[in-house]
Amino acid sequence: MLIVMDSAASAEDIRRVVESVRGLGLQAHPIPGAQRTAIGITGNRGAVDAGAFENLPGVAEVIPVSAPYKLVSREAKRENTVVSVGGVPVGGERLAVVAGPCAIESEAQALEIGRQVRAAGATLYRGGAFKPRTSPYSFQGLGREGLEILGRVRAETGLPVVTEVLDTETVDLVAEYADCLQVGARNMQNFSLLRRLGRLRKPVLLKRGMSATIEELLLSAEYLLAEGNYDVILCERGVRTFVDHTRNTLDLSAIPYVKRISHLPIVVDPSHGTGKRDKVLPLSRAAIAVGADGLLIEVHHQPEAALSDGPQAILPEMLRQLMDETRRLAPVIGRTI
Amino acid sequence: MLIVMDSAASAEDIRRVVESVRGLGLQAHPIPGAQRTAIGITGNRGAVDAGAFENLPGVAEVIPVSAPYKLVSREAKRENTVVSVGGVPVGGERLAVVAGPCAIESEAQALEIGRQVRAAGATLYRGGAFKPRTSPYSFQGLGREGLEILGRVRAETGLPVVTEVLDTETVDLVAEYADCLQVGARNMQNFSLLRRLGRLRKPVLLKRGMSATIEELLLSAEYLLAEGNYDVILCERGVRTFVDHTRNTLDLSAIPYVKRISHLPIVVDPSHGTGKRDKVLPLSRAAIAVGADGLLIEVHHQPEAALSDGPQAILPEMLRQLMDETRRLAPVIGRTI
Amino acid sequence: MLIVMDSAASAEDIRRVVESVRGLGLQAHPIPGAQRTAIGITGNRGAVDAGAFENLPGVAEVIPVSAPYKLVSREAKRENTVVSVGGVPVGGERLAVVAGPCAIESEAQALEIGRQVRAAGATLYRGGAFKPRTSPYSFQGLGREGLEILGRVRAETGLPVVTEVLDTETVDLVAEYADCLQVGARNMQNFSLLRRLGRLRKPVLLKRGMSATIEELLLSAEYLLAEGNYDVILCERGVRTFVDHTRNTLDLSAIPYVKRISHLPIVVDPSHGTGKRDKVLPLSRAAIAVGADGLLIEVHHQPEAALSDGPQAILPEMLRQLMDETRRLAPVIGRTI
Amino acid sequence: MLIVMDSAASAEDIRRVVESVRGLGLQAHPIPGAQRTAIGITGNRGAVDAGAFENLPGVAEVIPVSAPYKLVSREAKRENTVVSVGGVPVGGERLAVVAGPCAIESEAQALEIGRQVRAAGATLYRGGAFKPRTSPYSFQGLGREGLEILGRVRAETGLPVVTEVLDTETVDLVAEYADCLQVGARNMQNFSLLRRLGRLRKPVLLKRGMSATIEELLLSAEYLLAEGNYDVILCERGVRTFVDHTRNTLDLSAIPYVKRISHLPIVVDPSHGTGKRDKVLPLSRAAIAVGADGLLIEVHHQPEAALSDGPQAILPEMLRQLMDETRRLAPVIGRTI
Repeated sequence: MLIVMDSAASAEDIRRVVESVRGLGLQAHPIPGAQRTAIGITGNRGAVDAGAFENLPGVAEVIPVSAPYKLVSREAKRENTVVSVGGVPVGGERLAVVAGPCAIESEAQALEIGRQVRAAGATLYRGGAFKPRTSPYSFQGLGREGLEILGRVRAETGLPVVTEVLDTETVDLVAEYADCLQVGARNMQNFSLLRRLGRLRKPVLLKRGMSATIEELLLSAEYLLAEGNYDVILCERGVRTFVDHTRNTLDLSAIPYVKRISHLPIVVDPSHGTGKRDKVLPLSRAAIAVGADGLLIEVHHQPEAALSDGPQAILPEMLRQLMDETRRLAPVIGRTI
Repeated sequence: MLIVMDSAASAEDIRRVVESVRGLGLQAHPIPGAQRTAIGITGNRGAVDAGAFENLPGVAEVIPVSAPYKLVSREAKRENTVVSVGGVPVGGERLAVVAGPCAIESEAQALEIGRQVRAAGATLYRGGAFKPRTSPYSFQGLGREGLEILGRVRAETGLPVVTEVLDTETVDLVAEYADCLQVGARNMQNFSLLRRLGRLRKPVLLKRGMSATIEELLLSAEYLLAEGNYDVILCERGVRTFVDHTRNTLDLSAIPYVKRISHLPIVVDPSHGTGKRDKVLPLSRAAIAVGADGLLIEVHHQPEAALSDGPQAILPEMLRQLMDETRRLAPVIGRTI
Repeated sequence: MLIVMDSAASAEDIRRVVESVRGLGLQAHPIPGAQRTAIGITGNRGAVDAGAFENLPGVAEVIPVSAPYKLVSREAKRENTVVSVGGVPVGGERLAVVAGPCAIESEAQALEIGRQVRAAGATLYRGGAFKPRTSPYSFQGLGREGLEILGRVRAETGLPVVTEVLDTETVDLVAEYADCLQVGARNMQNFSLLRRLGRLRKPVLLKRGMSATIEELLLSAEYLLAEGNYDVILCERGVRTFVDHTRNTLDLSAIPYVKRISHLPIVVDPSHGTGKRDKVLPLSRAAIAVGADGLLIEVHHQPEAALSDGPQAILPEMLRQLMDETRRLAPVIGRTI
Repeated sequence: MLIVMDSAASAEDIRRVVESVRGLGLQAHPIPGAQRTAIGITGNRGAVDAGAFENLPGVAEVIPVSAPYKLVSREAKRENTVVSVGGVPVGGERLAVVAGPCAIESEAQALEIGRQVRAAGATLYRGGAFKPRTSPYSFQGLGREGLEILGRVRAETGLPVVTEVLDTETVDLVAEYADCLQVGARNMQNFSLLRRLGRLRKPVLLKRGMSATIEELLLSAEYLLAEGNYDVILCERGVRTFVDHTRNTLDLSAIPYVKRISHLPIVVDPSHGTGKRDKVLPLSRAAIAVGADGLLIEVHHQPEAALSDGPQAILPEMLRQLMDETRRLAPVIGRTI
């Protein structure tokens, strides 16, 4: 259930509603908007009686929510959420470009790529310290050492960093170094991890699972918001289908669909979404044109020597071209970069 | 096998190679390019001996083709094929926008929509006279009467028309009225129909099957070229996956993939590709940005009353907005409209 | 709409209802059952008024049908349909085993395999004279010569034959030789072919399309019944998914689902359903156990030399083992062989 | 790499090979078989020189392993692995039937169902104390209280219990009560959880992910074996496809495929595999017929009141029928129950 407050409602009105909700043994989630505040109610098994709230001062409307997600929905908050990642806004007018290597392999590699992506105009840096690998015998990342390197990349380039967290045990460690914690496709329904990240006060980038519907993606985001973390960025990274000319099938229709039903920002990862270097630029253009809030791009200066996902990493000069194309596309759809 | 001729090879040289091929009981397909002519060889069960040709005058190179398709491949022809549909080029610098109703319902409806799509700037008209319908009890199209109406729409609007052909029996009838014959997704592997259309001298728009790989799409096009019809336009219209927020999943990565391995033009149908009116514009922008040669758009002035596929038809004013967006996107990717 | 007649209704009562239906410009399809006759009404665009029929003599009940298919549904006919293929019943207590080569390659090959499958206990013979091939350069079948060979196989082995028909042009030719005409997966929605076969008086084996839902399969069957051909056998042959260890994913849950909602028999093709010789026997056992009415099995005495689909053909001795296993499984599920 | 020992090799020979492997900084995994022992080598980034081992006493053969999985492969161990779950063998001649409610809801419910499934002949009890739920607002299980109830069900019925573990934090708690820990489909690639369970000395039932290939499933199992836990049972529970008449598409061809390439037992879950009560029995028969080592079945005495997955739970009397059918099928495929 959602309680929508009058635009003239006072802080005291809101406090009173929150208390009434808690008095019924339920959780109240005030969601401030530009015009008015909505208060999401969770914790109820069945229906909640609207009558308990609609006569309280400052209450404009009580909406029974039929969609399974509540706090992530546009009904709960009409304005787009803009998430600040180390000071860089994601979800607003300005497009975000998160670029960097799949995995941090060494300080030299990470810094070299960092300098190049900053020079190209990327706004955030990405790089994996903990890598989820299909095989136990593949390179699993540098771990803590990788995080320390990420810290040095940020210090030198000034770019806030996004990096993946694999399990609850390492959440605190990763949060020490990361400006935004990424949840990978394989962990989209790792609910224990989501709950733990929901109690964190750092942005989370949540990737769509390999065969997840948008409803499932939004419900996973709902786990984060229900615990109190509203700084969530969604990410479309391709789904698994019969199609064999790309590694995954990038589902770009997901972008306008999410934009319509949710207030959360959504970015696109054409590197995993196609798995092919020569498809990254055209699909990046398409992602911007369809309305994504940004891109997540794997860049490597020596992709043939990369320890992970080399065939999909683009070269720094390709990133420069991508940024150039994005700069020219942005105004057509009313965005900047 | 492909025989690539010298750029200086004479018509006589080409004739001599063709005769040698036929002398071996095989078919020769000369494919003239801007610089040089290639000659595709088909009809062989196993390998053909390259030695039989490489010493003939004017022969630059003999390439054993490992891909299962030959005539549709970039190896056979380096330059993009530009198909002329009633004088409108598809596949060149200029983007094609094929717009009109799903089905021709009446002369009034067809003409009204025709006037509006021409006013919006569409370059070709589409409308179905024969409709393939999942249920035998659904509206199956006006048939011959629909074709006659299409003729009147062309006469009045000046727009060449694209319309679907369902079977070999009606190929001649449809060809009398259509400037381009469309093969629907369900017929992509109707090989008898493809062979018959291959012997026609009219352009064919071939839609990707609902679960076809790109290799299968290109092999179906190969049926057309192998019979002598080189005026083939491919069409991506979405594939069937588990995804439930759209009717099909539009596979935009197919566009750069086809562009790399084939010389044929490829357009995108975001109407069937999403099945949702409010997704048509964003996915049209994405299709243009990814490099498609054009769009196939369902337009209806009264979609709630449409006899077929109403929920995905856009209104004429939405087409005007789409054309406007396309006009601004085109120069970014080096195209015109 | 379905009109269910009293078990005591007379032929005259039925005739009167049929005439009333026709009087409204609609088609009537009397479907005799063991206990009672139902009369399907088709041809209506919207709802038909039940009142027009429910007071006629002999009418027990008038059922508005909400499912998009009518004549194929269990509501239209409670008893299982048993189709006689050249005297061999398909859909009754006895399991049907249709076995033979993918393609007829020569009289020697066809007869040799025919003798062996008869010896193993197969009840019907299969073999393709017209082959739908993804590539125009693959072996396309022997055509009329293949049909003549099929005639000789039947004469020598006594087994009725099932063979594929590709287009309307060859329906009459194929019907001359075949006891049952097969519609392949790629033609499941070739509605012109279905309508033509609906006017034939020979059984049709209709294969599920590569990405067809069961509703779409049943609606394609409805095309046949709506034209008057009630002798339809459905066939599950695997669907296309991301799964890569088999060529297709055999959807065995389709069998009990079809059995519940339709009266038509359904057989399983584990040869195409898996594309792997060593999976044919286990999946044949599973198909029988799940309730299929029979099997469609590719057999070749020299699979390594087969002109088509060699890797999935089983050897004659494997068919003998399959028949032996089927014989032991049948009684467990109340069937015979 | 695999080192296969002579059947006459002594314990001392094996010890010496293990030491040589460790001397190179690698891990050695001795895998005793009925005839001979194999020693898997892991921890190597590139190729290992076979020469270092093939001249050691007792070494029969050194096999470079090209498949990405090693310890789970038939090459590593020819004989089927039989896992003992609280004394009940899974993977041998005798079929295992794991039955019980989706979620433990109360002691009364759990015990009532426990008595009924034991009476029907089930060999193991299943029931969830920790439930992974798509929505944060769905019933998440009774947690520790559920585990305690499971302990009482085991005490009263004598059936060993299988229950799901969701995260590393609760592994020890769950292991205290469970005879076998289940990893759900959503956690199949939760590698931190797999590593932790690999260090446990309790059997693990590993479910295939919703869109996992068999190679990915086996590599996830490899995580468990590589950490030293060889008591792994695989489970096919359906994959996500476009098919809409069942909740998932049960991929029964996976069973003979896994059986050929791996020594691990594999069971089938037709409850999640179909999501429909009326499909559970036919698909259970099919699973047994195809060669599964057992079944995982959701049973509820009041499915309409179940807190989770009611529509797929079968009634106790249906389980009795299922057991009866299984008893009659088992001998046909050389199994017992």
